Amino acid sequence: MTATFREGDLVLLYQDSRRHWITRVGEGRFHTHRGYLDLNDLVGIESGFSVKTSLGQSLAVFKPRLPDLVESFDRPTQILYPKDIGYAIYMLGLKNGDNVVEVGTGSGALTAAIAQSVAPDGKVYTYENRKEFLRAAQKNVGKGTMSRLVTFRNVDPAEGFLERNADAAVIDLGDPWRLVVPAWEALAGGGVLAAFTPTVNQLEKLADALRKNMFLVLEAVELLVREFKTESGKVRPESRMIGHTAYVTIARKVASKE
Amino acid sequence: MTATFREGDLVLLYQDSRRHWITRVGEGRFHTHRGYLDLNDLVGIESGFSVKTSLGQSLAVFKPRLPDLVESFDRPTQILYPKDIGYAIYMLGLKNGDNVVEVGTGSGALTAAIAQSVAPDGKVYTYENRKEFLRAAQKNVGKGTMSRLVTFRNVDPAEGFLERNADAAVIDLGDPWRLVVPAWEALAGGGVLAAFTPTVNQLEKLADALRKNMFLVLEAVELLVREFKTESGKVRPESRMIGHTAYVTIARKVASKE
Amino acid sequence: MTATFREGDLVLLYQDSRRHWITRVGEGRFHTHRGYLDLNDLVGIESGFSVKTSLGQSLAVFKPRLPDLVESFDRPTQILYPKDIGYAIYMLGLKNGDNVVEVGTGSGALTAAIAQSVAPDGKVYTYENRKEFLRAAQKNVGKGTMSRLVTFRNVDPAEGFLERNADAAVIDLGDPWRLVVPAWEALAGGGVLAAFTPTVNQLEKLADALRKNMFLVLEAVELLVREFKTESGKVRPESRMIGHTAYVTIARKVASKE
Amino acid sequence: MTATFREGDLVLLYQDSRRHWITRVGEGRFHTHRGYLDLNDLVGIESGFSVKTSLGQSLAVFKPRLPDLVESFDRPTQILYPKDIGYAIYMLGLKNGDNVVEVGTGSGALTAAIAQSVAPDGKVYTYENRKEFLRAAQKNVGKGTMSRLVTFRNVDPAEGFLERNADAAVIDLGDPWRLVVPAWEALAGGGVLAAFTPTVNQLEKLADALRKNMFLVLEAVELLVREFKTESGKVRPESRMIGHTAYVTIARKVASKE
Repeated sequence: MTATFREGDLVLLYQDSRRHWITRVGEGRFHTHRGYLDLNDLVGIESGFSVKTSLGQSLAVFKPRLPDLVESFDRPTQILYPKDIGYAIYMLGLKNGDNVVEVGTGSGALTAAIAQSVAPDGKVYTYENRKEFLRAAQKNVGKGTMSRLVTFRNVDPAEGFLERNADAAVIDLGDPWRLVVPAWEALAGGGVLAAFTPTVNQLEKLADALRKNMFLVLEAVELLVREFKTESGKVRPESRMIGHTAYVTIARKVASKE
Repeated sequence: MTATFREGDLVLLYQDSRRHWITRVGEGRFHTHRGYLDLNDLVGIESGFSVKTSLGQSLAVFKPRLPDLVESFDRPTQILYPKDIGYAIYMLGLKNGDNVVEVGTGSGALTAAIAQSVAPDGKVYTYENRKEFLRAAQKNVGKGTMSRLVTFRNVDPAEGFLERNADAAVIDLGDPWRLVVPAWEALAGGGVLAAFTPTVNQLEKLADALRKNMFLVLEAVELLVREFKTESGKVRPESRMIGHTAYVTIARKVASKE
Repeated sequence: MTATFREGDLVLLYQDSRRHWITRVGEGRFHTHRGYLDLNDLVGIESGFSVKTSLGQSLAVFKPRLPDLVESFDRPTQILYPKDIGYAIYMLGLKNGDNVVEVGTGSGALTAAIAQSVAPDGKVYTYENRKEFLRAAQKNVGKGTMSRLVTFRNVDPAEGFLERNADAAVIDLGDPWRLVVPAWEALAGGGVLAAFTPTVNQLEKLADALRKNMFLVLEAVELLVREFKTESGKVRPESRMIGHTAYVTIARKVASKE
Repeated sequence: MTATFREGDLVLLYQDSRRHWITRVGEGRFHTHRGYLDLNDLVGIESGFSVKTSLGQSLAVFKPRLPDLVESFDRPTQILYPKDIGYAIYMLGLKNGDNVVEVGTGSGALTAAIAQSVAPDGKVYTYENRKEFLRAAQKNVGKGTMSRLVTFRNVDPAEGFLERNADAAVIDLGDPWRLVVPAWEALAGGGVLAAFTPTVNQLEKLADALRKNMFLVLEAVELLVREFKTESGKVRPESRMIGHTAYVTIARKVASKE
């Protein structure tokens, strides 16, 4: 890792767990509630060091990780959470060279995570029929370095994905059962599918459609994540937490009905 | 993905969610409780198809994903769960080319997942001072194709990791606070650390050590995963679930104290 | 509380959290895996003291609480858990003098808890159409001192409860929507209803029936309980936990549709 | 249950799950954001019916249950949640006639719930050394009909409770270990103790003190409650939930060390 900032690099300015921003090193100023920063001054600074704004506010500077970037995405839609993204990527078994079809693109959070997982030789083909969402997603994913792996398609793939022999298929939209047969056709034998459904009714209809259309449903789960306060002598879970995002279903294409 | 089995390929034989095994295509027989399979007969079969044992038991055959492999690992130690592995890999922001130091290797589950995430150009340096564990881990990780990315070290890195400028450090042993300073020294500026601790007391001591030794603690979380039965008309969570595995702490190396 | 055991008293013999039994002080012997106890020898012993079996195994003796009794019930059916019983009793607002209708009786766990909550002047009318369950429940509830408050009815109340002007109604069977109108008729104005449903589909149909039949649905919840190991320096949740029992719905009878 | 409102009765005015209030039938007006209500007009109305404000807002009127009252309490301190109150009351096995000591009173939520559980013949002796809290609690508990069962003591019972032979002891303050010996002295043989601790550190110190001072720790748990949206076809857990309130420890007084 080159830990020193150069012009044009993305930088995470970190004040605290609620106040942090992503911008680019170079021309211009970055304004916070407590003073500004000349972004040229970051050239040559090492990641992990702190800088001061014009009003003396200390900000740590970091090379953004993918979850930092995703957190900064414009989100016309509900975004998936790290717990769901991390789990699905792992359960899909994604690796360098895999080809993945995805629908819908949404804000591109999952698209970016998939792309990073199949880099440098894999490909993501992502479908989104709402033009304004697709544009936002393209801009979001473009913040990272994975854009070249991603093909954005402004089409509803209910009539069929253009790809064949894909290693994995990801479905994240309101009526996922419509995409089950197209996903089956796009996948290679034994290919893995992950789908996200906010309601139990969607989960039920999806699982039913999967079983009726030659998928083996490996599991359907929900993940809960609890944050902890770790101050010494006062360790406890946070009072509030996210109660629900989506159910995650993992299935594999088979050659005959279950 | 080449979806057709060739001699020497790993194959997942899947009877149901509790009965599935990993073996290799080629010479020999695989015995189940309901008959055997000639492993040569799998040559030319496509992933996702079913074969029958000598007693007529149907088994689906799949190319194993990483989580399939990990589930088949010999485990001299408690193994991490997909929920924890997936979350940590995502929060570390691992990508092709990253260099990662890890201690302890344990059964190699996390080692394999890290290796897959940084492939093809990254490296994992994993430390385990218990020789028999290291041997089991080497054998486990060797099942996949990532071995060439992994350097196994039979040393306790409390005196210092041999690596410098690492992108990420992972700590999974009983007294993680001992490794905080060595991890700081091994990491590049702004490098990310993930640690797993089963007890709250370990979490508390670890977080304290991190804050005192120039790490910014981004978060400490626990993840709960609930499996669902999805039979139509009878959707409900499973009656039993895993209540706890480990707390996951994510931190970044900084240049000065918080 | 009279803390000293007399002949005929129920006694909880407590070896550890997994091995404890309820029996009666008096004639006879109680056999454990590690020796027996003469039950007459318990006369005059104070609750909280320990006695020894013939083989020297120490057993603490206690006056059983209601949850001790319930744990000892014969259970032809799935039994509710303390988390669900405690929550429902509190949310129903049960108090001395309340009259409650219940269906189905099951093993009588909830019946006993309701009875204790409305004692000494309240009444529970519990319906169970499976004769063998009703018998087991009568025997179970008879272990405590609340039997005189409970009327057992071997009828399916789908045609109507015999009671009117009840303070609360409790439904715990597979098709609770069938009982919504009968419960409305049995309740006094503003009366409270609690229902338990294992599946999401049952919850959905129940909530729908309640709203269509002049109930205000106050809430539908699920409760999760995690046990902790509290050994000093090794505090952590137990590795396994109950993932699901039933959804609990709380509603109130209203005079017009929501 | 007399379901018709008379002058002086408490009444719950219910607009929706977020907007509901408790007041008394009789002289005066009750003002909402959408018009007012003449409280005399409620005389003769039956619980469960709806009334209209001067601006036409419909409000259902109910006899308040205990949880309705508790929700309306002035809360100088963090208040316990129904999940914790219901569980503790059930696990304590409280019943008519029991005598209970409690420290600290806080806002009186638990005091009121205990009183209702031991009515009509039991007693609660509740200790609170912060005078202003005690006054608020007295006023809160006074809203219900249980006041006559409750003795409020403005003393720190660290030197000893005034009561002996209590059936149960409840501890809800920041340093519960200080009260373990006084609780042991106040309890009858085999008496049950419940304690609430927000942090893991408090839980650990409490459990340690209990074991060292002749209590048998039956369990330490945390409860999570998730609310569900139950609209037909869109069933799902609420997006946000309470992540943590307190750990609940249940123990019994024994005559010798564990």
